[in-house]
Amino acid sequence: MASDRIVGVIGLGVMGKPMARRLVEAGFEVVVHNRSQAAVEELVELGATAATSATDLASRCDVVITMLPDTPDVEQVVLGGGGVLAAMRAGALFVDMSTIAAGTAVRVHANAAERGVDALDAPVSGGEVGAVEGTLSIMCGGDESAFARAGAIFECLGSRATHVGGPGAGQIVKACNQIMVGISLQAMAEALVLGAKAGVDQAVIVEALLGGAARCWALEVRGPSVLRRDFRPGFRCELHHKDLGLALAAGGEFGATLPLTASVRETFGAMKATGRGDFDHSGVITIIEDLSGEPSLVEEAVSGGGGPR
Amino acid sequence: MASDRIVGVIGLGVMGKPMARRLVEAGFEVVVHNRSQAAVEELVELGATAATSATDLASRCDVVITMLPDTPDVEQVVLGGGGVLAAMRAGALFVDMSTIAAGTAVRVHANAAERGVDALDAPVSGGEVGAVEGTLSIMCGGDESAFARAGAIFECLGSRATHVGGPGAGQIVKACNQIMVGISLQAMAEALVLGAKAGVDQAVIVEALLGGAARCWALEVRGPSVLRRDFRPGFRCELHHKDLGLALAAGGEFGATLPLTASVRETFGAMKATGRGDFDHSGVITIIEDLSGEPSLVEEAVSGGGGPR
Amino acid sequence: MASDRIVGVIGLGVMGKPMARRLVEAGFEVVVHNRSQAAVEELVELGATAATSATDLASRCDVVITMLPDTPDVEQVVLGGGGVLAAMRAGALFVDMSTIAAGTAVRVHANAAERGVDALDAPVSGGEVGAVEGTLSIMCGGDESAFARAGAIFECLGSRATHVGGPGAGQIVKACNQIMVGISLQAMAEALVLGAKAGVDQAVIVEALLGGAARCWALEVRGPSVLRRDFRPGFRCELHHKDLGLALAAGGEFGATLPLTASVRETFGAMKATGRGDFDHSGVITIIEDLSGEPSLVEEAVSGGGGPR
Amino acid sequence: MASDRIVGVIGLGVMGKPMARRLVEAGFEVVVHNRSQAAVEELVELGATAATSATDLASRCDVVITMLPDTPDVEQVVLGGGGVLAAMRAGALFVDMSTIAAGTAVRVHANAAERGVDALDAPVSGGEVGAVEGTLSIMCGGDESAFARAGAIFECLGSRATHVGGPGAGQIVKACNQIMVGISLQAMAEALVLGAKAGVDQAVIVEALLGGAARCWALEVRGPSVLRRDFRPGFRCELHHKDLGLALAAGGEFGATLPLTASVRETFGAMKATGRGDFDHSGVITIIEDLSGEPSLVEEAVSGGGGPR
Repeated sequence: MASDRIVGVIGLGVMGKPMARRLVEAGFEVVVHNRSQAAVEELVELGATAATSATDLASRCDVVITMLPDTPDVEQVVLGGGGVLAAMRAGALFVDMSTIAAGTAVRVHANAAERGVDALDAPVSGGEVGAVEGTLSIMCGGDESAFARAGAIFECLGSRATHVGGPGAGQIVKACNQIMVGISLQAMAEALVLGAKAGVDQAVIVEALLGGAARCWALEVRGPSVLRRDFRPGFRCELHHKDLGLALAAGGEFGATLPLTASVRETFGAMKATGRGDFDHSGVITIIEDLSGEPSLVEEAVSGGGGPR
Repeated sequence: MASDRIVGVIGLGVMGKPMARRLVEAGFEVVVHNRSQAAVEELVELGATAATSATDLASRCDVVITMLPDTPDVEQVVLGGGGVLAAMRAGALFVDMSTIAAGTAVRVHANAAERGVDALDAPVSGGEVGAVEGTLSIMCGGDESAFARAGAIFECLGSRATHVGGPGAGQIVKACNQIMVGISLQAMAEALVLGAKAGVDQAVIVEALLGGAARCWALEVRGPSVLRRDFRPGFRCELHHKDLGLALAAGGEFGATLPLTASVRETFGAMKATGRGDFDHSGVITIIEDLSGEPSLVEEAVSGGGGPR
Repeated sequence: MASDRIVGVIGLGVMGKPMARRLVEAGFEVVVHNRSQAAVEELVELGATAATSATDLASRCDVVITMLPDTPDVEQVVLGGGGVLAAMRAGALFVDMSTIAAGTAVRVHANAAERGVDALDAPVSGGEVGAVEGTLSIMCGGDESAFARAGAIFECLGSRATHVGGPGAGQIVKACNQIMVGISLQAMAEALVLGAKAGVDQAVIVEALLGGAARCWALEVRGPSVLRRDFRPGFRCELHHKDLGLALAAGGEFGATLPLTASVRETFGAMKATGRGDFDHSGVITIIEDLSGEPSLVEEAVSGGGGPR
Repeated sequence: MASDRIVGVIGLGVMGKPMARRLVEAGFEVVVHNRSQAAVEELVELGATAATSATDLASRCDVVITMLPDTPDVEQVVLGGGGVLAAMRAGALFVDMSTIAAGTAVRVHANAAERGVDALDAPVSGGEVGAVEGTLSIMCGGDESAFARAGAIFECLGSRATHVGGPGAGQIVKACNQIMVGISLQAMAEALVLGAKAGVDQAVIVEALLGGAARCWALEVRGPSVLRRDFRPGFRCELHHKDLGLALAAGGEFGATLPLTASVRETFGAMKATGRGDFDHSGVITIIEDLSGEPSLVEEAVSGGGGPR
């Protein structure tokens, strides 16, 4: 473990790039790989090494982190004969920080175990800001010892890492998180639209509700930005749509019936279908406004150049 | 206003009785009226005066407070030729603290205005405990001057009184509150049931989610009691069912479309229909458990003598 | 019964007027009353007699039919000291053909019984066309003998009258009908929008689905008009919204949990809130289109002069 | 085409086996393959030939039909280097009659086109009975010429084959069908439970509603069996759950927002989660009964030996 200095990062997107940068700055020896080269070059300038392929990276690292868009990406890059796990050396540590299907996460753990590789599923919340500032919240599934081994890395990337259970548990807890956040944003939306239609000042509603049992992150943190009609992400609707799809798939697999989750997922789907997939997830209020005959504010938000505000 | 010492309280139920008691103890001259006499006698022993009828009370008081179960009760007691407003003297103050339809509240204000009576709609949150301890949160609609006039009374009854707008605004904000609380409780339920079905420790989920964007009163305050299977109210499902009915009626009247609110109201309806109407509203998790094939814990809760735990 | 020749009709709206006309044309001696006089005069020209008030009418007729917009109208006109029932003579027959709350219908029956008046709750389906052509479907609750007594009248007004049970049963069966029709219209909408978004010809979908288990009145009768973007009522969204509110109220009262009904009611609410309350109920497809980023066809429908097509 | 006599069938489950048998009986030269051998042997006794593998079969046939459980099965058996398409000769015809994701169907068509193989996606409705009796309804996507070429085969298997559009259109129309059927079954359930709770005879409701705009296959065909508490499939809830998952995935992919579909899918999920996955899909009424405090009839149905009745 003292030797876990060489850390590979596969996937240098909006999350993976700042995470890799933090690892470089914290003194880890970082090897990177990404489909497009621009991000790789940025990291190399900061001191990282470029691998020639995912498997090249895998063969050279003590720890391999993947931060990929969706389940099929992880299946393709990580599993199978030509995948990352097959190229890692026994005794190394694999940490998938992507948000993917819990079932696939379990298969990754099993595959890793067969090869003598330690594994963790460790999805995060906190968004791009959290990745840049190292304040992610990390929900981690896998063996206690693997979790302990990842301690220094998680300290560098997040402000809070919780060992939530065995293989796949990280993905499940992430799903739980996305369920509660997505639903509470639509709950706030319904409350605020009712208030507005009935002629009550929305700012007063936010203020009044924060004092009681309705208080929540949505109201505290997104209430004010919604009042400003600022729908810049934050966390994009299209990603929340994807994540609630994973939650419902887990529900189907494990036998949990999730009516509100299913309903809210369609709202995020409506955001995508109406060209608002890149709005912050608090933008679901614009769907409730559409359904309530208050589309003007949406038009303003949509037409305001340079993306959602 | 200096003369607003004689305060009438109509409706001495689970909320109204402790409220009247607090007013007596604070030195107000309190006149009471209630359908059943037992509660009246309790208050008289504490120093209140019994009126012979609602209109008798109305004619004798500077301020009349009503705390009644539902909209038809307020319509019957307050409005019309033989109602409380008709018996009040011009210049008096009427405060309806019941949770009722916003439309009826607006009619009450109009009726009061015709008779020269100041009026407020001032529903509360905080439940029986809040009524006993004087820590209610009071959402108040009506004129600024009427709100100011009620200051001493609200200070005695609550820890927080917010003037949220004109006639009916208090009921609307209360509806907003009930929307957000009800939905967040079912959101938590769906998250916890998914976790349990997937084999993740629910206590770990509560702990992990409290650190991030899923944090809310439901998770903080009701998470632990749900984990203990303690469904003693708190706030009863049958009341939350009633209140969401009012929210949907307001939505229908003012043109707000409220899909999650409608869905959650049916869940509270299911609690009532299955004999769990007197469970705390956090008990909606038992419906999600039923739907997910985990009825055993419910049976335990239901069969545990003496009502929900 | 042979003497049941004098029939009063209270409420000469879009339904009541053609119903009264049919009764005149069938040879009944018809007495009419309506809030606005224009419709009364039309009927008088056809041979009806105008009463001076609802109670005047009630006192003069063997049978009194009410066809009123909503529950509060029936409560006001029919019940209470100055109501129709109080003015009817013992042995007369009262038939409420309005669509109202089942609970109120039960109270009407009880009130009638106290006064020795036979009563029926007999809401209809079939819309304005059915009223004009005498092809209404009549769902009738009350005593078998009262139902038999109304036979000649029902034969004149409808093509099908079913005695569905005791007091209130007519309203319940009407609610069941509105539940199934409203839901199936949105079901068709979801299917057709999915098809369109995926590039499949909607006419082909209607054709293909009619051959199997998806076949229904919605698809058969409203499929073609939806394909033509013809949203002229038929049956208006705002009325279906009202009727599903009654269905949900009955659900709340009798302990039936109705998740789809609650969801579809919000869709009809969205129709009202977005200025489409007077569209035919098949117009709910325009909400699904809005939510799916296909608003152009709606705009066309909305802007097409002279109301929905 | 006159030479399309050798027809391979891969997948001899509850649907595929009787379909293969019909083809044998109609005089086609049938080659079969299946994971488990028992069904293969049955078909061989009837006159079919057993292939040694799926690719062996593919290389020997003019037409290859697949009837597999789900999307991943088709992906594994049909696509890729070792798949069926790669083994088929140019000019042959591939017909996938499984119900799978529309997106995968499109990929199958593209893959077939690259190899000079004609392709159709041709899912069916009608269930086991339809497969046995040759009365399936076949919804077919692909080129007109390929559809024409399959004419004799479709005539043998179904009573109705509709060419509904290009590649993937068959799967989309099947999804539309499952949306409408699933939703209408729950609509009927909500109506019948409301009726029962309000004390109205369910048989009367079915009878009354069949006369009007609520009439549908669900009510006509499944109404009577539901009244008998006969929940033998027919079509199983677990399959309808799977199919609505495909519908929602298509909605997500093509941008159609499907709120009722999402809601009903959770109901079918609840059937699975509570051990009723093998009930006929009309059995969703038992979930509505559970939610309405009428579980006794369910218990009876569940405990009645030998599966659902």
